[in-house]
Parts: sequence; structure tokens; C-alpha cells
Amino acid sequence: MQRDLLCAFLRLFYAKEWVSGTGGGICATREDGMLIVAPTGVHKEMVQPDDLFVLDPATQRIVEHGGQPAAKPSECSPIFSAIVARRAAGSVVHSHALSSVMAADLATGASLIIRRLEMLKGIRGLSNSEEHRIAVIENTERESDLTSAVERACDDPMFATSAAILVRDHGAYIWGSDLWEAKRHAEVYHFLFEAMCARSAARKD
Amino acid sequence: MQRDLLCAFLRLFYAKEWVSGTGGGICATREDGMLIVAPTGVHKEMVQPDDLFVLDPATQRIVEHGGQPAAKPSECSPIFSAIVARRAAGSVVHSHALSSVMAADLATGASLIIRRLEMLKGIRGLSNSEEHRIAVIENTERESDLTSAVERACDDPMFATSAAILVRDHGAYIWGSDLWEAKRHAEVYHFLFEAMCARSAARKD
Amino acid sequence: MQRDLLCAFLRLFYAKEWVSGTGGGICATREDGMLIVAPTGVHKEMVQPDDLFVLDPATQRIVEHGGQPAAKPSECSPIFSAIVARRAAGSVVHSHALSSVMAADLATGASLIIRRLEMLKGIRGLSNSEEHRIAVIENTERESDLTSAVERACDDPMFATSAAILVRDHGAYIWGSDLWEAKRHAEVYHFLFEAMCARSAARKD
Amino acid sequence: MQRDLLCAFLRLFYAKEWVSGTGGGICATREDGMLIVAPTGVHKEMVQPDDLFVLDPATQRIVEHGGQPAAKPSECSPIFSAIVARRAAGSVVHSHALSSVMAADLATGASLIIRRLEMLKGIRGLSNSEEHRIAVIENTERESDLTSAVERACDDPMFATSAAILVRDHGAYIWGSDLWEAKRHAEVYHFLFEAMCARSAARKD
Repeated sequence: MQRDLLCAFLRLFYAKEWVSGTGGGICATREDGMLIVAPTGVHKEMVQPDDLFVLDPATQRIVEHGGQPAAKPSECSPIFSAIVARRAAGSVVHSHALSSVMAADLATGASLIIRRLEMLKGIRGLSNSEEHRIAVIENTERESDLTSAVERACDDPMFATSAAILVRDHGAYIWGSDLWEAKRHAEVYHFLFEAMCARSAARKD
Repeated sequence: MQRDLLCAFLRLFYAKEWVSGTGGGICATREDGMLIVAPTGVHKEMVQPDDLFVLDPATQRIVEHGGQPAAKPSECSPIFSAIVARRAAGSVVHSHALSSVMAADLATGASLIIRRLEMLKGIRGLSNSEEHRIAVIENTERESDLTSAVERACDDPMFATSAAILVRDHGAYIWGSDLWEAKRHAEVYHFLFEAMCARSAARKD
Repeated sequence: MQRDLLCAFLRLFYAKEWVSGTGGGICATREDGMLIVAPTGVHKEMVQPDDLFVLDPATQRIVEHGGQPAAKPSECSPIFSAIVARRAAGSVVHSHALSSVMAADLATGASLIIRRLEMLKGIRGLSNSEEHRIAVIENTERESDLTSAVERACDDPMFATSAAILVRDHGAYIWGSDLWEAKRHAEVYHFLFEAMCARSAARKD
Repeated sequence: MQRDLLCAFLRLFYAKEWVSGTGGGICATREDGMLIVAPTGVHKEMVQPDDLFVLDPATQRIVEHGGQPAAKPSECSPIFSAIVARRAAGSVVHSHALSSVMAADLATGASLIIRRLEMLKGIRGLSNSEEHRIAVIENTERESDLTSAVERACDDPMFATSAAILVRDHGAYIWGSDLWEAKRHAEVYHFLFEAMCARSAARKD
């Protein structure tokens, strides 16, 4: 059931162009705390429930191997695990949407402030009058090398209310307490990214 | 039948990105004048006919509880009710489309004028030579606090021919005499919002 | 078969946002020269084969009434008929796409020149080195009042190689020898309109 | 199976607006080295497995005629064959996407440099720190006249790591070792083209 939903969301996110070219993905934690992730390097819209891996997020040890013998678990797994551990997330989306790259471009420093948008209320605990600050971290050559910067952003009280981290030139990590909240947060943050880019473009100065 | 159509329109509007991230929605009045609304805070494309609530629009009293025990009716219900009462609407769409936010940004004051577009004829009673004026109201922290501004806009003779109200930083309310007219008006107004934004962007000054 | 295809194309064009809000449409001529058209004022993606009208294009007389008793044939019928008669078209698409409105905005006079695009080869008889000129006519309050300007554009040797007419603030008429060529021409011209708008926006002067 | 996949990808690419108006296409090599191509001038989303042609890429001789008697093989066949021969490609996509035309417009000379994007890792062998250079060739009146410029670009060591060639005013050729890699590369390059255009537009100078 959880595996079916995870695959259904991959197809949905593919249709939204968040996980094209085999990039991006989504994970979810099982009731026993183990992490379900897709294989690496696969066309995300094609992933079937039996293809999924189960990892121990504390050790990255493979608990259940995906059905494709040559497959390896997503390279995002250490990052997914860090967010699950530090933010009590039950699901993390990794987006390669163009809007997330363009939104990060709007940030001159290590964070981006989102304001004046009703959709902020779609993020758990936020009001629409908030100045909502999210972390923007620099990209690294290897995905797993992002982990320490992701951990620092998770732990930084400046970002306590956020459920997303932008990775410059790369995309975004967006999380929620379960698959459904992660989907809602992903839709909300992508709207916010698009709105900020559209508003920046509409200012003719 | 009406409930099926309402759910089908939610799926359609989700595909158009008007109700993503659980935002936005649609209501319709039954033959007996009672109001059918979706639950609040749910993924709109997933709503099933049995999930819907029925309210008395005069009192907001729940006449039929939706099938999900923990659910509550849409927070838009007071606004939907106000528009139904003052504009004899049989259906109201609440859109969170980016184009509605960007169109409201084009309005410096409390209204927006739309002109020089054939699609104006898609709004009941309008010709394409009209200077069509719609209300733009300020956003509030709680959705229900929009009600009095919505009521004033509904009653303002300046907006007598309009079937939409823009809410700054938030979205739009768009109505019609029944579900089908509300859908047509929603498609027409979103086109008009997109056209105004595109024309504004194309002017290089 | 022809009726099924016509309805399938309406659904396709709706998905492309060329016929939203009940606007726009498509017609086709039968083997006996009679014109098949959709009813006016209906949601185009919902039209069923039995809903279609058959008209004599020479007289606008209804040969077969559509299945919905209260329905009337498309208001575009006189324009469709004019193009069928003067350009030996077997099918005419009427688009309300935003790109057609924006492309007409690029034309300062009564025509638009399209150049330097491989997709020009998608129009029957054209090469990609062509300076392809299409007519841009002014909009009128009533659709049928466009007919004489459409006729003049059809007869103007300046537009002899074109298969489209832009209507300012309104949309486009695009035709072909049959339904399939009209679909191809519609896809090609919409691409050309989008390309011209994108190129105009990319020029920062 | 391979034929089914090729037709499924044509439908996917049509939905992405890469092969609209009968333009663009895709080929794949069989185990025996022969080339499977679509017919020319057909609506690509409608192609059925039995419609496909099989050619000898060394001679362009037809090995198996497509099921439609009047059909001829794609005019891209000599270009497909050149890329298959010189780059050991097992599949080549020809895109008519607007983003490929707009990306070529960004190139003042005979190449385009793509940088600072994680999605570069989606191209076989590349890292995200790469300055990735792809060839941009001038368009010709006849598709087959592109062949010699495509051959030179394939052979140019400057483009040794690339899996795409842009054709000015026209589109792109994008290849991979098999159908799946060609699809991944096509998705990645289209993302890169869109990102470059968006970044160019966001720079307000």
C-alpha cells in the first residue's frame, strides 16, 4: 500500500517534471522506522513496488534488496536519512524541478525568504503573514557530499519552521510527516518557487 | 450526479494547477438550496462523492456530514455562502492558480480592468468591447475573515457584471449559475488573467 | 468515423488550451460537401458525435440538427463556410489559444511575417527559407461580422500560401485539406506563434 | 517489444511537445544493426509498430517496408544513420521542441556551453562541474543536407562528451546507447535548454 503510493507519487511527480531524466525521487519510512527508497539511475515513472529498496536509515544497511538484481539504492539515501532523523520526517521528496533551480538563483546568500503568499498556509504550522525563510545550500559533485550541509540546515533554528532545503543549481529536498504531507508540501513549495520567479520577472527594474 | 460532477471538476482543476497543495475548491447548491462543499485540508483531486459535506448556507449548520469522521467542511464555506446569497450563484470555484495571484499584482488599487479580449464574451452578459472591472480585495490571515470584503464586492454596483473576485497574494473566487457555468467562467477568467500577465510582460518599458 | 475524429480533436485541443471556456472549435466537410460543426456555447471537450450539426455551407441551412434539441450550430459557421469555399479547405480549426492572441499583438499592421523556423515546412507547400506572411484582421463584436474580413484575407494574393488568419484580441482560424492536415497546420502554427512570442521576449531592447 | 517502446516514446514526446505537427522523431537499431525508423510526414503520436520501416544504415536501403503502402521512411534517416555510425548510438531522438530552438538562439557561434547544473550528471560520463559544450549547426533547406554538418560535429573532439547537436531555427538531435538512454538524455538536454533560456531571461541587462 505504502509502496504503491510511493510509485504513484513518482508517476505524478514525473508528469509535473520534478523527476525527469532519472533525477529526483521520494522516500518514506515504514512503521518499523526503516526507509523505503527507489533504485538509483532509473526512470522514476517506471518504478514498480517490487523494485524498491528498504534501508536502515541509521546505518544505510540494505534490509530488503529491490527486485532488480543489478540495482543499487538511491544516492539520496544518506540525505533522506539525515532529514528523517533530524526533522522527524516520514517522507522526503527530492525535486529536480526547474522552478527550484530558478528560485535558488534568486537567493544571494544561504537562505531565501518567501512572503506575501496565501500558499504559505499549506506548510504545517505557518500563517500567510510569515516571512518564511528556507535554507539554500551549495551543490557538491557527489550527491552524498550534500549530507553535512543538509544536516546543518536541518539543525539551524533559523529554519525551524521550514520543510524544504534548496540546493543551488540542483533542486530541492522537501519533507513531511508522511507521504501525503510530503506531497502537499512539495506542491506548496513548488508553487511558492514559481510565484517568486514570476514576481521577480514581473519587476521591470 | 451533482456530487460526481463536483469531484470530476476538482480533478480537472487539480490538473490545471488551480487547486494544488490542498488549496482551493468548488461548491454547488442542491435543488433545496443547501450547499455541497468538500472537506477542508484534503488533496482535492482525491475527494470522493461520499466525502462531501452539505451545509445550510444561511447558518453554516452541517446538514450532512462527509463520510470521513474526522473531516470538517471547507473553510471557504462562509465565502461560498455569501456569494451564493448575493449573486444567485449555483456554484463557486476557489482558485489558487498562480495566474490569479499575478493578475492581482497588476492591480494597483481595489479593482482590475480587463479589456480588448474576445474571451470576455465567455462571461454571461458581456461583450468583447467591454471594459470589464473586477474587484481585488486584500488577503486576511483567516479565510473566513475575507467574507465581509467579499460581501462588499458582491454588493458594489461597480462590479455588477463580474463573476469573479481576486484576493491579493491568494487567488480568486469565480462563480456561475450552476456547475457548468462556474467551470466556463473559471476557464475564461483564468485565460483573461494569463492574457493580462502576458501582455504586461510583453510591454518592454 | 469523421464525427468521432472531430470530437477526439476537440478533446485534444481542449487539453492544449486552444478551446477552453466553450470558445473555439473545428469543422469538417463531408464527402457531399456539407459542413459538420459543433453546437455553439458548449464545453468543447464534452461534444459527442450525435451532438454535431450538418449545414449547407452555401446557405447556412441546417441539413441535420444536432441531438440536443435546444442547441444551435456554432457561430463560426459562416466563417468556416467562407474558408471552405475560398481555400478548398476540408477542415477549419478556430483557436482561442493565448499564443494566437499574443502573436497578433506582435503585428503592427494587417499581417505578420514568420521566418527562420524549420516548422514552416509543416505547412503545405512551404520551405523553411520562406518569409511567410499571414493576415491579421481586426476583431468585431459579433463573430459572424468577421466574415467579410476573412473573405478578403482568403482572396488576397499576399496570403496565397498561408493556411491561417489571426484575429486580433481573439485567436486564429487555421485550415487544411482534411481533418488531419488541419490538425497538423494547427500544431505547426501554434508552434510558430509561440516561437515568435518567445523570440520577441528574448530580445532585450 | 522494441517497436512498441519506440511508439510509446513517440506518444510521450508528443505529449511533451517535442514532435508536434508531424515533426521530429526517434529511431533505434536492432540487434542485427539495422535501423528502425518511423514513416515521414505522419502524426508521430499515431504511429503503430507495424508502420515502422527498417533500413540498412550503411546504404539507406529499405530492409522492411512499413505497413502503409504509400509511406516513405523518415527524412531524418541519413542523419540518424550518421550518428549511429559515428557515436555508436543505439537510438537517436530528433526534437522540434521550442526550447531547443530558443537554446540555439543563445549561441552566437557554432557551439553552446552548458554549466552549473546538476542535471549535467544525467548525461553519460559527465560531472556537474563540467563546462559542457555541444555543437550548434546551421539549418538547411532539406533535412538530408544537414548530414555533413552533423558528421563533422560528431567527429569534432571538442564535442566528444556530448550526446546532442542543436540545429539553429530547427531543433536538436539527441542520442544514447539504447532507447532508454536516448530518452534519459532527451529529458536531460531539454531540461538544460529550458534552464539556460530561463536563466538568460532572468538576467535583466
